[in-house]
Amino acid sequence: MTEKKDTKQNRNSKELLTKRSEDFSAWFSEIVQKAELADMRYNVKGFLVFQPWSVFSMEKMYDIYEEVLQKKGHKPYYFPTLIPEKNLKKESSHLGGFTPEVFWVTHGGETELDEKLALRPTSETVFYQMFKYWIRSYKDLPFKTYQRANVFRYDTKATRPFLRGREFYWIEAHCAHASLQDAEKQVKEDMETTEEVMHQIFGLPFIFFERPSWDKFPGAARTFAADVLNPDGRVVQQPSTHFISNEFSRAFDIRFKNKDEQEDYVYITCYGPAISRIFASIAIVHGDDKGLRFPWKIAPLQVVIVPVSDDEKVVKKAKMLEETVKKIASVEVDLSEKSAGEKFNYWEMKGVPVRIDVGLKDMASKNITVFRRDLNKKEIISEKSLTGYIKKVADECGKNLREQADKLFEGKIKNVKNLEEMKKVIKDGGIARCGFCSVGKDGEKCAGVIEKEIGAEVRGTRLDEKEKPNGECVVCGEEAKEIVYVARSY
Amino acid sequence: MTEKKDTKQNRNSKELLTKRSEDFSAWFSEIVQKAELADMRYNVKGFLVFQPWSVFSMEKMYDIYEEVLQKKGHKPYYFPTLIPEKNLKKESSHLGGFTPEVFWVTHGGETELDEKLALRPTSETVFYQMFKYWIRSYKDLPFKTYQRANVFRYDTKATRPFLRGREFYWIEAHCAHASLQDAEKQVKEDMETTEEVMHQIFGLPFIFFERPSWDKFPGAARTFAADVLNPDGRVVQQPSTHFISNEFSRAFDIRFKNKDEQEDYVYITCYGPAISRIFASIAIVHGDDKGLRFPWKIAPLQVVIVPVSDDEKVVKKAKMLEETVKKIASVEVDLSEKSAGEKFNYWEMKGVPVRIDVGLKDMASKNITVFRRDLNKKEIISEKSLTGYIKKVADECGKNLREQADKLFEGKIKNVKNLEEMKKVIKDGGIARCGFCSVGKDGEKCAGVIEKEIGAEVRGTRLDEKEKPNGECVVCGEEAKEIVYVARSY
Repeated sequence: MTEKKDTKQNRNSKELLTKRSEDFSAWFSEIVQKAELADMRYNVKGFLVFQPWSVFSMEKMYDIYEEVLQKKGHKPYYFPTLIPEKNLKKESSHLGGFTPEVFWVTHGGETELDEKLALRPTSETVFYQMFKYWIRSYKDLPFKTYQRANVFRYDTKATRPFLRGREFYWIEAHCAHASLQDAEKQVKEDMETTEEVMHQIFGLPFIFFERPSWDKFPGAARTFAADVLNPDGRVVQQPSTHFISNEFSRAFDIRFKNKDEQEDYVYITCYGPAISRIFASIAIVHGDDKGLRFPWKIAPLQVVIVPVSDDEKVVKKAKMLEETVKKIASVEVDLSEKSAGEKFNYWEMKGVPVRIDVGLKDMASKNITVFRRDLNKKEIISEKSLTGYIKKVADECGKNLREQADKLFEGKIKNVKNLEEMKKVIKDGGIARCGFCSVGKDGEKCAGVIEKEIGAEVRGTRLDEKEKPNGECVVCGEEAKEIVYVARSY
Repeated sequence: MTEKKDTKQNRNSKELLTKRSEDFSAWFSEIVQKAELADMRYNVKGFLVFQPWSVFSMEKMYDIYEEVLQKKGHKPYYFPTLIPEKNLKKESSHLGGFTPEVFWVTHGGETELDEKLALRPTSETVFYQMFKYWIRSYKDLPFKTYQRANVFRYDTKATRPFLRGREFYWIEAHCAHASLQDAEKQVKEDMETTEEVMHQIFGLPFIFFERPSWDKFPGAARTFAADVLNPDGRVVQQPSTHFISNEFSRAFDIRFKNKDEQEDYVYITCYGPAISRIFASIAIVHGDDKGLRFPWKIAPLQVVIVPVSDDEKVVKKAKMLEETVKKIASVEVDLSEKSAGEKFNYWEMKGVPVRIDVGLKDMASKNITVFRRDLNKKEIISEKSLTGYIKKVADECGKNLREQADKLFEGKIKNVKNLEEMKKVIKDGGIARCGFCSVGKDGEKCAGVIEKEIGAEVRGTRLDEKEKPNGECVVCGEEAKEIVYVARSY
């Protein structure tokens, strides 16, 4: 049974070998396995098993995201997973964009189906087909929906756990509006939602870009997306929001009567936070050399209690403290057969925000030794202040992680005037900011040069502030019409 | 646009036409549409769109079920949706049972896959493949897992919304144990969980049967299942729990070292509450001639406030009350352009537990008129007692619905001595209790006679109490070895 790994029994003997500060990419692969976030040994390529330590956290992420969306008027649905080929064909650029990466269902039992069915790579053609039944009048608008769902992409690039897989977990929020102005308001709301959830609660800093025309979502008229920066200087696309092409509302015949009793087609936006990919960013951005760190609200476990000896009184005390802590946090007592040191390392690696060490010495003085993972700080507090202390960490821990993460961006964005300078900034793990000829079709050639010579991408123009270029395009030397940001991605 | 139906605008003009007491089956079809529980117009046969009014409730049902499972030590996972054909082939009766109703994925993009992949009809062969990596020693046992998931069956029978569809939503909890005794304990725990959630919280009475040998889950050594009774006398199978055949632990090589350092194969149980089907039972069992009724904890909306005129003061008052109620319940003010009477009917049809009517007359006397759906009773209460009143309904409403539902079973079970008596009991919408030769292989022939002559099924032997037969098999006249229950199902 030598191939067996990662069981409860032996997980503790395995310390983290790689330092995040030295090799972040190897660190990430290792932490996925050692913290038991996901198991890659499932026997279908590109598919993996998400294990409890990530699922507990992702479920909380779903709860938080869904609560915010509902507060803003989105209603939850469960739409079918299977899409008839004819739906996908209704909007040509959408089909073109997704056809190469769709899994097709062709048979039910022994029977060949009349029409092949796609496993949803995304659900525009599912939602919009139904919108026509539900929307009649401007009074029905905005019509705001969402679903939590797993989606499937037959991605031929190398998969990476949580970051790129053939089945992943997301929310897709689709809205129909009466006017382009309302659609624009929705994009702004989606940006605010991203700030509220991704940054304020999950602690992840990002920049919201409008993507260049050649990098739009298939079927979108305009695409906006939040880029999160990894320690290696690569950016990861997180929630994106789109003006969906008007072709869709025409193809799916989604009309409404406006205030003047005239028929019009709706304007559609969609917003998609990929929960399993955001989890990766949380692990990557907040992690450190010891392992994971979690903001309080999405920690799989908030408090762990470690009896530092197996003295009966110590164990009893640990269990008493568990009862107290249970009232305000999720908590577990570690009664496994490891040394105290091994337990410390293990729970630090797992990223539990607060550890309580229980020993005879502290008990005698009515003190408690606590370790908080956000600051990696050990403190001795009086027993009676424990509840207050935990509440304080609950309040501070997310904010501390966020502030530490915000520093990642500091100084990473550098102005460049030519490709030489750009090359250096990118090589140093930075993001280059520069003048650029055009983010319309005309600029694609210059973007191609950057990609070829530097291996980096034009991520787009900033959405949160209007930036005025002066000078020339960093590639072709024509007059710059935009300021763009260039970074490496995955 | 004549085909457009069920939009916000016109939903209110459509009253419920069918009385549940007169034609329960037509009532159910109608309520699914009028209460906007699901839309059947999706263009893939057997698939439907679950709308917010059912999804809000099903999400709460998931939360409740998952909390109970986690409290009992089950850990959450997300397993892949796709299963390689070879996994399904590992246990012959499982494959045999599911092959005719599996959707097969054969292509990724344009590429034909090396091996066809099944959309999970259930996930035994997915979980158990991974168990071998995670289980080593008796110390790892019991190993208790679950996932919330959508599953797929290419069911060739007629589909019915929520009750039988080609994609449905459930929880599947899989456990590995060190001994048959531990597996038996798990089945008992699953029964308790069913009582705790299905009966105590959802208010659904049921009987837990052990199914006859010919009616087992494919791949199970023994199958236990809860039958819920519908008003038309038909039973619906709700959560089932199974001893999984030992073939599985052998086929997937799930071994562990027992206390004596000997290698042994694990014993597996699985438990599966189908959330979307349970939702059907909630609608069906608690509904009445006016429409739906919901237990408080799973109501999509708990309180609705109806201003009975559009007087500005009344609307203002309604919004003030909303602020008060918001602190203890989910609440909405109905400001639509309908008459008060239409609003009353609409919200009664939707099953909201408490309605608050706001009018000038009540305002003058500092009173409030409230309507509670569990008892269909209107009451006038003082404004200052509102919060207390809502809390009282919150406490009582689930219990009241449960007690009303419990009465469904009362007198429905009747002892019968021969097929003539059985026919009459079944025709009257009852469940027949009788002596039976055998629930092993030998009895299948007699069960076939019952099915053919009466159109009813042997549901099994009671699990909660040991019942001793005396007398003869109701069909063949041989000595009765069991007492079985016979009912019609869908």
